[in-house]
Amino acid sequence: MQTPGVPAPNHVPLTPLSLLDWAVTVYPRKTAVIYGDQRMDYAQYDARCRRLAAALVRRGLKPGQTVAAMLPNIPPMLEAHFGVPMAGGILNTINIRLDARTIAFILDHGEAKVLLTDTAFAPVIREALSLVKHKPLVVDIHDALGPGGDALGDVDYETLLAEGEPDFRWQWPASEMDTISLNYTSGTTGNPKGVLYHHRGAHQGAFSNIIACQMGQQPTYLWTLPMFHCNGWRFPWTLPAVAGTSVCLRAVDPAEIFYLLEAEKVTHFCGAPLVLNMLCNAPEANTLNLKQPVTAYVGGAAPPSSVIGALENIGIHVVHLYGLTETYGPSHYCAWQSEWDALDADARAEQTARQGVRYLTIEDSMVADPDTMEPVPMDGQTLGEIMVRGNSVMSGYLKNPDATEEAFRGGWYHTGDLAVWHADGYLEIKDRAKDIIISGGENISTIEVEDILYRHPAVLEAAVVSAPSERWGETPCAFVTLKSGKEDTTADEIIAWCKDNLAGFKVPRHIIFGELPKTSTGKIQKFVLRDQASDLDDSKVAHRSSKG
Amino acid sequence: MQTPGVPAPNHVPLTPLSLLDWAVTVYPRKTAVIYGDQRMDYAQYDARCRRLAAALVRRGLKPGQTVAAMLPNIPPMLEAHFGVPMAGGILNTINIRLDARTIAFILDHGEAKVLLTDTAFAPVIREALSLVKHKPLVVDIHDALGPGGDALGDVDYETLLAEGEPDFRWQWPASEMDTISLNYTSGTTGNPKGVLYHHRGAHQGAFSNIIACQMGQQPTYLWTLPMFHCNGWRFPWTLPAVAGTSVCLRAVDPAEIFYLLEAEKVTHFCGAPLVLNMLCNAPEANTLNLKQPVTAYVGGAAPPSSVIGALENIGIHVVHLYGLTETYGPSHYCAWQSEWDALDADARAEQTARQGVRYLTIEDSMVADPDTMEPVPMDGQTLGEIMVRGNSVMSGYLKNPDATEEAFRGGWYHTGDLAVWHADGYLEIKDRAKDIIISGGENISTIEVEDILYRHPAVLEAAVVSAPSERWGETPCAFVTLKSGKEDTTADEIIAWCKDNLAGFKVPRHIIFGELPKTSTGKIQKFVLRDQASDLDDSKVAHRSSKG
Repeated sequence: MQTPGVPAPNHVPLTPLSLLDWAVTVYPRKTAVIYGDQRMDYAQYDARCRRLAAALVRRGLKPGQTVAAMLPNIPPMLEAHFGVPMAGGILNTINIRLDARTIAFILDHGEAKVLLTDTAFAPVIREALSLVKHKPLVVDIHDALGPGGDALGDVDYETLLAEGEPDFRWQWPASEMDTISLNYTSGTTGNPKGVLYHHRGAHQGAFSNIIACQMGQQPTYLWTLPMFHCNGWRFPWTLPAVAGTSVCLRAVDPAEIFYLLEAEKVTHFCGAPLVLNMLCNAPEANTLNLKQPVTAYVGGAAPPSSVIGALENIGIHVVHLYGLTETYGPSHYCAWQSEWDALDADARAEQTARQGVRYLTIEDSMVADPDTMEPVPMDGQTLGEIMVRGNSVMSGYLKNPDATEEAFRGGWYHTGDLAVWHADGYLEIKDRAKDIIISGGENISTIEVEDILYRHPAVLEAAVVSAPSERWGETPCAFVTLKSGKEDTTADEIIAWCKDNLAGFKVPRHIIFGELPKTSTGKIQKFVLRDQASDLDDSKVAHRSSKG
Repeated sequence: MQTPGVPAPNHVPLTPLSLLDWAVTVYPRKTAVIYGDQRMDYAQYDARCRRLAAALVRRGLKPGQTVAAMLPNIPPMLEAHFGVPMAGGILNTINIRLDARTIAFILDHGEAKVLLTDTAFAPVIREALSLVKHKPLVVDIHDALGPGGDALGDVDYETLLAEGEPDFRWQWPASEMDTISLNYTSGTTGNPKGVLYHHRGAHQGAFSNIIACQMGQQPTYLWTLPMFHCNGWRFPWTLPAVAGTSVCLRAVDPAEIFYLLEAEKVTHFCGAPLVLNMLCNAPEANTLNLKQPVTAYVGGAAPPSSVIGALENIGIHVVHLYGLTETYGPSHYCAWQSEWDALDADARAEQTARQGVRYLTIEDSMVADPDTMEPVPMDGQTLGEIMVRGNSVMSGYLKNPDATEEAFRGGWYHTGDLAVWHADGYLEIKDRAKDIIISGGENISTIEVEDILYRHPAVLEAAVVSAPSERWGETPCAFVTLKSGKEDTTADEIIAWCKDNLAGFKVPRHIIFGELPKTSTGKIQKFVLRDQASDLDDSKVAHRSSKG
């Protein structure tokens, strides 16, 4: 139907850029971004994104080149999500908690031509820039609400924006499979891998957020989840499609979060279980007075039912999500079934602790044997690996065809997460493939043991890894952080608790108390614990403690 | 990334089939379809669609072949929306009010291999089948809630379904640009044109309904809008994506509609202005007791503010939509702006009577000069043609490359509707291109004159066409139906009303009372009126009346 040289009237590349274009057309005066006292409507937001795009093009950015961003959840980070692809560029958000060596690796590997950086990160960025092979154009962002810091750059962000026109006519991507962003996985070992997102997946993933998270029209979204994490689970692109308002948040602080929930009438926020935990335990929780329904989407491990219950009591509904960097963030969510209404709190928690069912834009998902690719029976028992296929799956890993091929073998993305498949089609993660413990020929799910540990009233955090055993090959070893005021709990008490609640072979032979080592994103570094556990010998030591 | 022969893990053709697949995976026990006392959950619904697909394949249907359906809004019509494309077929729904000659034309032109037909339509279908060049396999549907009728067919629908497996493994379309359905336009003259929809557009259009119409999760949708009209504005495909319930309705009957709104807790329905009018004027409206919010989406001409007000009073919120067969139904809607909350009813009606802004999956829209393709100024004054581009625009017209090229010239779909563009980006239709009246060199919008006529308290319906004039070239001629109890209103009273509200040259020279001729979809047949008006001569006749 298409005349050469004339755009098709009925086929437009899918891109989240179209969603901002829609919002500024229909709701130019609607508040798009709130940050402290600052308010930006969609017309202003769109104009700043276009200025950024125009300025990047003037500074020589070519389509397909990378712009890195070392930014907290402040307005320029939102602007980068549109301004960089409007210039044809690829946005590479960097985890702000990384060390200089890793940042330098990412800048070099991603071939960043430009780096947008908040002056608060000047020390680590200065060091990283001293290590890179190719120095990008450095753009300093001076955030009035930040702690300040040295300018390292070639140009200040506002000066750069002034170089671009507010009505810059950006080009649609030539293909919807073009890359829109680059996200490095926070691997616990080795160099991070660069996950490539395409425009089509970002667009479809933005739509599926609206549907799964029931965003309605004109929601208000609080930025408790870092945007450097899987592009904020696609929400920077989702919000314009529903004329939503972004409430920026430089750092996670319970008092500030509670204030914003009330003052800005927030309807949705996302976060790691850690954030929910902080909210639960904050003194402000007792005086919170919400006038609007609020839903919190929590990724990672299922929050304990006590946390969910405490939040529901103050008016925050919790929904459990699951996903990976490779699936643009959440690929599964624990969709509510009406028959759960009748369950008591514990039975309900058993349902909602599961990772659930696929999003609409993950067109297929299964729990399968990774060798035969045969789905496991839906018996809630048989372990298999979670596999997904669909339009919100990454293009692949940057410059890493082997890893890409390995991840995509058999036409499915292999998540590396081990799960069972329940009769109702809900999947439940039992472990990372590499975290399983094989003891006397029996598989032990470290997650199952951790679940029991978490239910002990004195346990704040727990991680289980394998320790070598002469007799059994491996045995479980538990690392535990006790709650404040419960420090006198003994290893024997914990062991006894486990014996009451677990099969004997699953009971940890070692309980080691202390703080848990974590990655910059708050993931527990099990490889550190495995190192520690590898020195243990169950023939000699029963229960060691690092306490005191 | 794709190994030959292995499906891509990250690119799946977009198709509404995936939406039913999602619903049956996540909500197998949720009620999908209600019809009278009949209830079908998603597992049953999906199984029947698969049976239909499997049976069609067994009967020899090949990918890309057409299955026609002459059905009211009953469950088999919903099943056809999935079962036919699951077999790789193209669904061609036929307007049940068409005459035998037109139906025969459609069956031949669309090369239907199968015809699903309700026995109620046996007389017209028998005649149509006597006229076709190639007789399709005829499948009779005996609807227990229908009036009955002769079986004409080769096989009964339930017998056909029994030939197919409930777990038939349907194939995804090879390309998302493959045709999913064929809809003939109800042109007022000449042979209808066959509009081709692709899987991608149907999928994206289904998503955009969820967002624009705020379907939330698990809505209940009442089938007041015929599914033969642009595939029910995409709603058969939309509903599974939100685990919604379809309430079928064989015929539009206000008492039945009011009963279902209450009994089935309907949340959404669509329809022509005529349907809203019927509801307003039905005696049951006074006793309606809705416990849930209900939104009615109305296409075509804007309903008068009195109708909107009456419906709002009984708890039905009205949203105005605009679209064409070529845009899969609605392409624009009158999105609410919060500042309208403060307006009085008349000022508000002035805003909401406009056709509004584009859906998310119409990626661009403009009001432009069709010759130069330059957008008109956003002044609310300058007439231009509405043009759209996007992923929910038809593939083209079947076997009609000339008409397709004409419709798509310059890379835009030309709607043929004339509109002004307001400063806020909302467009407002003033006329069909061919309905404009040129009087003494001045353009007269027939819609503007009709709007004034509709505001007269005695006017039920009005249509304005051009009448020949020796002096002016053309003059407006009004055809008017008076409300019951107001039949003694005179042409002079109407003329005086128009003089008070319109520029002199826009005042109709003729007022002709009587019923208005309509197409099978309820569109006023202006060509019939134009025929009548062409006999008039303004030098002789001032105000004729066909009354009495």
